[in-house]
Amino acid sequence: MRGSILVLTGPSGAGKSTLIKEMVKDIGPYYFSISTTTRAPREGEKNGVDYFFVDKEAFQNDIAEELFLEYALVHGNYYGTSLRAVEEALAQGKLVIFDIDVQGHKSIKARLPDITTSVFITPPSFEALKQRLINRNTDSMEVIEKRLIMADEELTKIDEFDYVIVNDDLQKAIQEIKAVAQTAKLKKCPASLDALKTLWKGI
Amino acid sequence: MRGSILVLTGPSGAGKSTLIKEMVKDIGPYYFSISTTTRAPREGEKNGVDYFFVDKEAFQNDIAEELFLEYALVHGNYYGTSLRAVEEALAQGKLVIFDIDVQGHKSIKARLPDITTSVFITPPSFEALKQRLINRNTDSMEVIEKRLIMADEELTKIDEFDYVIVNDDLQKAIQEIKAVAQTAKLKKCPASLDALKTLWKGI
Repeated sequence: MRGSILVLTGPSGAGKSTLIKEMVKDIGPYYFSISTTTRAPREGEKNGVDYFFVDKEAFQNDIAEELFLEYALVHGNYYGTSLRAVEEALAQGKLVIFDIDVQGHKSIKARLPDITTSVFITPPSFEALKQRLINRNTDSMEVIEKRLIMADEELTKIDEFDYVIVNDDLQKAIQEIKAVAQTAKLKKCPASLDALKTLWKGI
Repeated sequence: MRGSILVLTGPSGAGKSTLIKEMVKDIGPYYFSISTTTRAPREGEKNGVDYFFVDKEAFQNDIAEELFLEYALVHGNYYGTSLRAVEEALAQGKLVIFDIDVQGHKSIKARLPDITTSVFITPPSFEALKQRLINRNTDSMEVIEKRLIMADEELTKIDEFDYVIVNDDLQKAIQEIKAVAQTAKLKKCPASLDALKTLWKGI
């Protein structure tokens, strides 16, 4: 049985990382997609764990060879998802999880609609997001302001997602994301459906 | 917040009733849609519980007055869903659950696509279904044969459903249907999304 895809999108500061950490605890075999980027590593970020860090030339070569499932240029840096690792995980029947922006979601949904479930995770309000970004103390005010403007733009795209989770009550949000992940695994690609029909055929 | 719709379809004998009974135990406020039919009550069936039993003339009058969300003529009998009760439950924010055939599913999905999640529940094989129908001892062999032919036709439509649950391991199927029901409640109608955007808007 081929695997499925779960795309999680939401502004930086929406609490995605916490939700994902809880979600994967009892979700069965999964592969968390690691993006490739040309941006500089932040303090504490490790190559092959947080991102694959590459230079611009290497990235542009891979674009030319169509080795990306999706890619985008954000704030002057490339971000993309290498196709090979995703296909491998799907072939192994794993749930492939993406933490990706609205542009990336659009590309994946367009390329693999049958097996993709997507969720937009949002803080309860703009003020709550601003406060979270200030409190976590990892970005300059200039970066925070850029993030807030981007969050506002992203929110206009929530209609494109299958589900929306408002991360207000954390325990409730954890329960919701777990249900969505389990449901995402029930998405069947056309080939699996054909197999089921063949298996079932009785008359 | 407006409610959502969960459509459950599958051949008679797939185990839908058992799954629904388990599912609703911890799903929050819900309304289980009761169909209206012109067929005669089976032994033990109660009006207003299993179906609303009406005569053909009354049913055809309601068709003319567009009081059905969907209806169909099956084996010479009318079956339909009255619009009023569904709209009322949605307005109360409830999860409206339908146990309905593939035709009914198609109508509901067409009328209310934004808030509808659908699941096809299938026994693991044709043989398993045949055995279940014989074992439950409620239908004549003639009716069982009709059901089997209908099940075979229904299975060709599984691509139209959001999710497929193979009811092989009952505990697993219960867990799956609960996850789908919880996920279905996260479906947002466009009006709710607009409300969220307005609430959120900060810049």
